[in-house]
Amino acid sequence: MISERALRWRRHDPFLVKAHFACARDTFDAIGNPGGYVNFGTAENQMLFDRVAPLLRRHTEIREPDAHYNELHGARAFREAIARFLSRRAGRTLSPDGITVATGASGILEMLSFALCDPGDAILAPAPYYSGFDHDLGLRAGTALWPVSLASPGFTLSVDAIAHATDEARTRGLGVRALLINSPQNPLGQVYGTSLLREIFAYAAREHIHVIADEIYAESLLPGVTHATALADENAEVSVVYGFAKDFGLSGFKVGIHYSDNSDLVKVMQDTAYFHAVSMQTQRTLTGLLEDPELPAFLDTMRARLSGRYVATADALSESGIPHLRVEGGIVMWLDLRHFLTAPSFECERALYEAIFSSCRVSISPGQAFHCPEPGWFRLCFTMPQAAHSEGLRRLTDRFSGCR
Amino acid sequence: MISERALRWRRHDPFLVKAHFACARDTFDAIGNPGGYVNFGTAENQMLFDRVAPLLRRHTEIREPDAHYNELHGARAFREAIARFLSRRAGRTLSPDGITVATGASGILEMLSFALCDPGDAILAPAPYYSGFDHDLGLRAGTALWPVSLASPGFTLSVDAIAHATDEARTRGLGVRALLINSPQNPLGQVYGTSLLREIFAYAAREHIHVIADEIYAESLLPGVTHATALADENAEVSVVYGFAKDFGLSGFKVGIHYSDNSDLVKVMQDTAYFHAVSMQTQRTLTGLLEDPELPAFLDTMRARLSGRYVATADALSESGIPHLRVEGGIVMWLDLRHFLTAPSFECERALYEAIFSSCRVSISPGQAFHCPEPGWFRLCFTMPQAAHSEGLRRLTDRFSGCR
Repeated sequence: MISERALRWRRHDPFLVKAHFACARDTFDAIGNPGGYVNFGTAENQMLFDRVAPLLRRHTEIREPDAHYNELHGARAFREAIARFLSRRAGRTLSPDGITVATGASGILEMLSFALCDPGDAILAPAPYYSGFDHDLGLRAGTALWPVSLASPGFTLSVDAIAHATDEARTRGLGVRALLINSPQNPLGQVYGTSLLREIFAYAAREHIHVIADEIYAESLLPGVTHATALADENAEVSVVYGFAKDFGLSGFKVGIHYSDNSDLVKVMQDTAYFHAVSMQTQRTLTGLLEDPELPAFLDTMRARLSGRYVATADALSESGIPHLRVEGGIVMWLDLRHFLTAPSFECERALYEAIFSSCRVSISPGQAFHCPEPGWFRLCFTMPQAAHSEGLRRLTDRFSGCR
Repeated sequence: MISERALRWRRHDPFLVKAHFACARDTFDAIGNPGGYVNFGTAENQMLFDRVAPLLRRHTEIREPDAHYNELHGARAFREAIARFLSRRAGRTLSPDGITVATGASGILEMLSFALCDPGDAILAPAPYYSGFDHDLGLRAGTALWPVSLASPGFTLSVDAIAHATDEARTRGLGVRALLINSPQNPLGQVYGTSLLREIFAYAAREHIHVIADEIYAESLLPGVTHATALADENAEVSVVYGFAKDFGLSGFKVGIHYSDNSDLVKVMQDTAYFHAVSMQTQRTLTGLLEDPELPAFLDTMRARLSGRYVATADALSESGIPHLRVEGGIVMWLDLRHFLTAPSFECERALYEAIFSSCRVSISPGQAFHCPEPGWFRLCFTMPQAAHSEGLRRLTDRFSGCR
């Protein structure tokens, strides 16, 4: 009774999802379950609830208009609050008419894949990249991601690398419809600067490629880092993806945002948002959050905690001889475990992952889950609750100290 | 930059949506806007908020687990509460494993269209039917609805009519993958009985057709009416669609439910729910609502008000010489305005609609928006707030009294 297309995309659970639920069934708790798993694998900021909860609790009233139909791409008041919030970041006034609200950044990405690509078209993505992208853009919408492979140890993005990947994909007969960039970058922790962004837009315009700028970690910046947001450029052919999962620690609320100045694309996004509409109850609460006078203080606290935790984690890893890239933004670190592999292969990387998972009962994510072109790199999310973070770090550093 | 497929489904706004927002911009209010539109066109029960709100307000706590990732096809606790609630209706124990939660019944229907049909396949639907079905199943998933045309004045569904439509569709080369039934039926107000349901399942099994039973109005029953739910039959190849929009008056919460005993289908639905996940905040609140000891009293009040309003409306229409079908369930009535048409054509039906809209400033929905095979029938939602309902009914009966 299942359609041919559904049989094609009946998926194996994505790696990160499987690891997440394996940890969730037997989670470390200092008192209740001291031998449980520490999950450094799921990218969530779990250091925010005590500060975000009071801002949410002020805005939980149940009002009659919220019980009834509203615009399904987001209520006007919510889109206005989002537009004001994003305008401050953009440095220009964004219209609420360019905004589409839908169920999570994953929903937004799937909608974009339908809107921009036909089945068999490709979207370029600098690799390593967040592996959920394959799922979000490909599962049902049928678009393939084509990696722009970046070289270790810096994994620096350049327009040359993008152009090379475009040529490769076109040689294989694929239509290259979009380039998906992500800044702050997951898993690398890089933040793109203005000049790189400008070069990317110029290249994309020449090649008629739409740029999808996933800026889901836009507020999660380390001290002194300036994020060049794609929202700033009113002439670029770009979609900006944002949401509440990361900077606000509200993954469970499943609220994603799309902004573009391309009104044809916005129309398609707002039409399909019909199937991905967000509960008015949650729209009401998040409107209140965005307009709460304490929002700036919340974001400052978020960044202060992020920075403190990052420095402590980086120091502990360095002291134990675990190299890692410098983080400019986001909540994950990219660890260089190449010299702990028994051989430089993805099989050995997987074996190391399994060994850490079973003997340390710690989940960190292997680079192969991110299409990393070279084996031996791992992603660690450093924003777990304090007790779990300390315990996991102790287990990891103990293990790797023993290796040397 | 837009894909071919998106260009194909860039839609005109569906008729009912357009009429809804036309009314929303200039809505009747007894004090503030006595000349505004009365919207009998949107199918919402607006007689419930005072009773449902207290049950929601008891369950609005913001808790830490709800901020984080959970199962994206619905949290376990929510699916358990739904399973208990639906089990009472089914008369058998339903497993939470068979349940998928997603953004509204529209989201569920779109997911089903992807899961059951390939582009160009057809789903049968007894007509007149809710016109949103064309949009939900067709817009992005590309499935066509094939009407099972029913004859006035009773519009009685039979397996013969279904078989006739199946043959017609197959003669045109369409694969008939599913039959979409709706009981209580919108717009007719019929409730299907056990024997009809049994005959439908037997026919569908013989023809390898999946039955989609949209039971979104399942609790909205008039006195003495028994609803034969498709949940009751554990051997049927059936999907049951439910949600909180109608029986609870919570369209703005956008929560739809799918239940099936077909585990292959459930797997596909739960996979794609990833893109249609409901905010944990709203899942928490609705879990509380379903488990609240006052829920049965709320449903009794809902039915008592529904019945009182229906009787008053039916009496007023009858006294003014406006014929209408007897309602067994749901919140809409099917009016027979055939003898008010200047000629028996859909153009004249449309002209009558426009005249009522502009001169009475009342929106009722013409049968052509429901694929009604005969012109002159209109749908009226009778569960508007009291003041608007009285005003709209006065305007309508005044107009038609003047016609005779």
